[in-house]
Amino acid sequence: MDYASFFSISAQGSSRSVIREILKLTQRPEVISFAGGLPAPDTFPVELLDDIMSKVLKDRGRTALQYGTTEGDVRLRSQIKQWVATDGIDVSADQILVTNGSQQGLDLVSRVLLDPGDTVVVELPSYLGGLQAFRSYQAKMVGVEQDHEGMKMDRLAEQLQALRQKSIKPKFIYVVPDFQNPSGTTMDLGRRLRLLELAAEYDTLIVEDTPYRQLRFSGEDQPTLFSLDKEGRVVNLSTFSKLFCPGFRLAWAIAPPAIFDKMVMAKQSTDLCSAAFNQAVMAEYMIQERLAPQVSSIKQLYRRKCEVMLRMMDEHMPKDVEWTKPEGGLFLWVILPEGMDSMVMLEKYAIPREVAYVIGQAFHFDGSGTNTLRLTFSFPTVEQIEEGIKRFAAAIRDYRAAL
Amino acid sequence: MDYASFFSISAQGSSRSVIREILKLTQRPEVISFAGGLPAPDTFPVELLDDIMSKVLKDRGRTALQYGTTEGDVRLRSQIKQWVATDGIDVSADQILVTNGSQQGLDLVSRVLLDPGDTVVVELPSYLGGLQAFRSYQAKMVGVEQDHEGMKMDRLAEQLQALRQKSIKPKFIYVVPDFQNPSGTTMDLGRRLRLLELAAEYDTLIVEDTPYRQLRFSGEDQPTLFSLDKEGRVVNLSTFSKLFCPGFRLAWAIAPPAIFDKMVMAKQSTDLCSAAFNQAVMAEYMIQERLAPQVSSIKQLYRRKCEVMLRMMDEHMPKDVEWTKPEGGLFLWVILPEGMDSMVMLEKYAIPREVAYVIGQAFHFDGSGTNTLRLTFSFPTVEQIEEGIKRFAAAIRDYRAAL
Repeated sequence: MDYASFFSISAQGSSRSVIREILKLTQRPEVISFAGGLPAPDTFPVELLDDIMSKVLKDRGRTALQYGTTEGDVRLRSQIKQWVATDGIDVSADQILVTNGSQQGLDLVSRVLLDPGDTVVVELPSYLGGLQAFRSYQAKMVGVEQDHEGMKMDRLAEQLQALRQKSIKPKFIYVVPDFQNPSGTTMDLGRRLRLLELAAEYDTLIVEDTPYRQLRFSGEDQPTLFSLDKEGRVVNLSTFSKLFCPGFRLAWAIAPPAIFDKMVMAKQSTDLCSAAFNQAVMAEYMIQERLAPQVSSIKQLYRRKCEVMLRMMDEHMPKDVEWTKPEGGLFLWVILPEGMDSMVMLEKYAIPREVAYVIGQAFHFDGSGTNTLRLTFSFPTVEQIEEGIKRFAAAIRDYRAAL
Repeated sequence: MDYASFFSISAQGSSRSVIREILKLTQRPEVISFAGGLPAPDTFPVELLDDIMSKVLKDRGRTALQYGTTEGDVRLRSQIKQWVATDGIDVSADQILVTNGSQQGLDLVSRVLLDPGDTVVVELPSYLGGLQAFRSYQAKMVGVEQDHEGMKMDRLAEQLQALRQKSIKPKFIYVVPDFQNPSGTTMDLGRRLRLLELAAEYDTLIVEDTPYRQLRFSGEDQPTLFSLDKEGRVVNLSTFSKLFCPGFRLAWAIAPPAIFDKMVMAKQSTDLCSAAFNQAVMAEYMIQERLAPQVSSIKQLYRRKCEVMLRMMDEHMPKDVEWTKPEGGLFLWVILPEGMDSMVMLEKYAIPREVAYVIGQAFHFDGSGTNTLRLTFSFPTVEQIEEGIKRFAAAIRDYRAAL
């Protein structure tokens, strides 16, 4: 059978992700991996969950094991409403859609907004899963460079103006304003306000992805774009994957009512509903006020890990290597001197020295960023960070010696 | 804000499903509902799950709460491989993709095969969720009538020939061969073989959806299309929702390797992976050999409920009403005399008499089937079936008197 003539244009364009293939190389236990964006498993509330699951099964087992509504469990949505209210987001539970991870939020928002050939403005670099979602709907992407405070607003204005001159109105601007994946940078208030201003001026929407937002371990909180928006231009995506655990696949999207309705219909046709059991357990966990203390302890742990990684970088990096100083989240972004290629370094020098990272090119839709890479500090232990950064520095030296 | 100019063509075409809106009317506790296609909640293994979840958390909690692979948990896929082998499906675990309910299987297979304007051949009537998925990818549908043995093969041949004359090659034929939703009918071996023959002759694929297949309570098993296929033309979709419980959202797709690969990539961009915890629990449940006894007891219960419903129908239906005699599954299909409209009857006579069903029109992509409707026997209790069919018969009498 030759299936080529059966595949959709979207499927014809799909290929195994770079990250997936590289991660296979790093799965040997000897390799210290700074690659996958995984939370620390020792922060998962394993023992506590045993009790909570027993209670859910006892109190409401048959409902929790039945089909649920597409929008999500009413009790969970009410808990999420209260949770986001503490972060300055004042929204009705009717605008909160439970999704299977934020990746489903990205998929659904893309599905209701994008036709093939539509334009999306993304950060350079940007979250890989976002790029994959937009690509799968055959969107065209336009990139805006970042500096240490995130997306550059003057560059955004230039890009929007250039698009306008070609009579192109982008469907939305995709940003991760807090501790961005992969760069670790955070947008300050001025840029957030300017971003909203530009969205209004060029009449476009904003998809604000905030998976790491609650994991700030230094500096000052900045308001979400959703809470600053007065016009209904922002869809906010958030997740329990980094606050609770990823293995429940629970996240949520907050959207203006008209967009919310379309996303619900898209979700219905995509998977009917998210797992009722997982939602019932999450609701119970939040009702018992277990989430806030868990988030506190995750922040403490990640602060420590980030400090260790930054200290090791200070001690071991050559002078011409740059990196970001994140105030939260999971990631640190490294810029090697021009001319160095992080893919070559990974294959020839880092993996042989048993240390791994994700190449920065994977986060650039346009194939740029070859001299960049992402390091995750959340998953490895403190000891692994200490040893791993030494190996990483050695790999850079090896590579440089061979250049 | 006016969002109309932002929505994709797919979103512009989406609207709240008829079933959803009607179900809202039937949620009063006084209403006996034969509407939703829900399994009986007293078949859910609530107590057993408490022990199994404790064991999973204890043995492998941190892995079960972490991200998993897109393809699905290795242990679960190996259990599914063994499970389908007992049903004559000999397939490598590498061809088994874990999905969030079969609805995600339908979405993924549509996503990798369908571009806007592509043609799909469906049964008349057909599963609503399938129609929604194909519609959301802007497919054109062509319908083939059923009789009491499922899709009519002579009509299928005619339709395929008519398409060929217009130089249209359908991407696939979508069928639910066992205890079809909504009709309850099952295709015999002759039709299955003919269907495969026609698919080969007209060079198209088959999507075989078998959510109810394992719930046969009378008659003889027929082989799956997947097991009869020698050419790699069949994608099989199956689910734990009707065998275990729906609230875990676990199902699986089996596909030829080339299609499987594309579906994995589509799933990665859709939601990264299914819930690792749910998969670990399901694997443990199967390893402990709990699934087969559960399925046995579900079949006994549904046989009894179906018998009661059929007996009540025999006793109370007017002579000119027809219905199917299912050998398994959850549904019974009712054909009212021509000229009666099941939607009118629902709103004006059935709901006032506190009984509900799903109108047959919802299962016809072309808006036909106005004199048909679907009754679910799995969810209501035996007592509710007895009382509900009396009410249903009274609604028919009321409607007829008013005609």
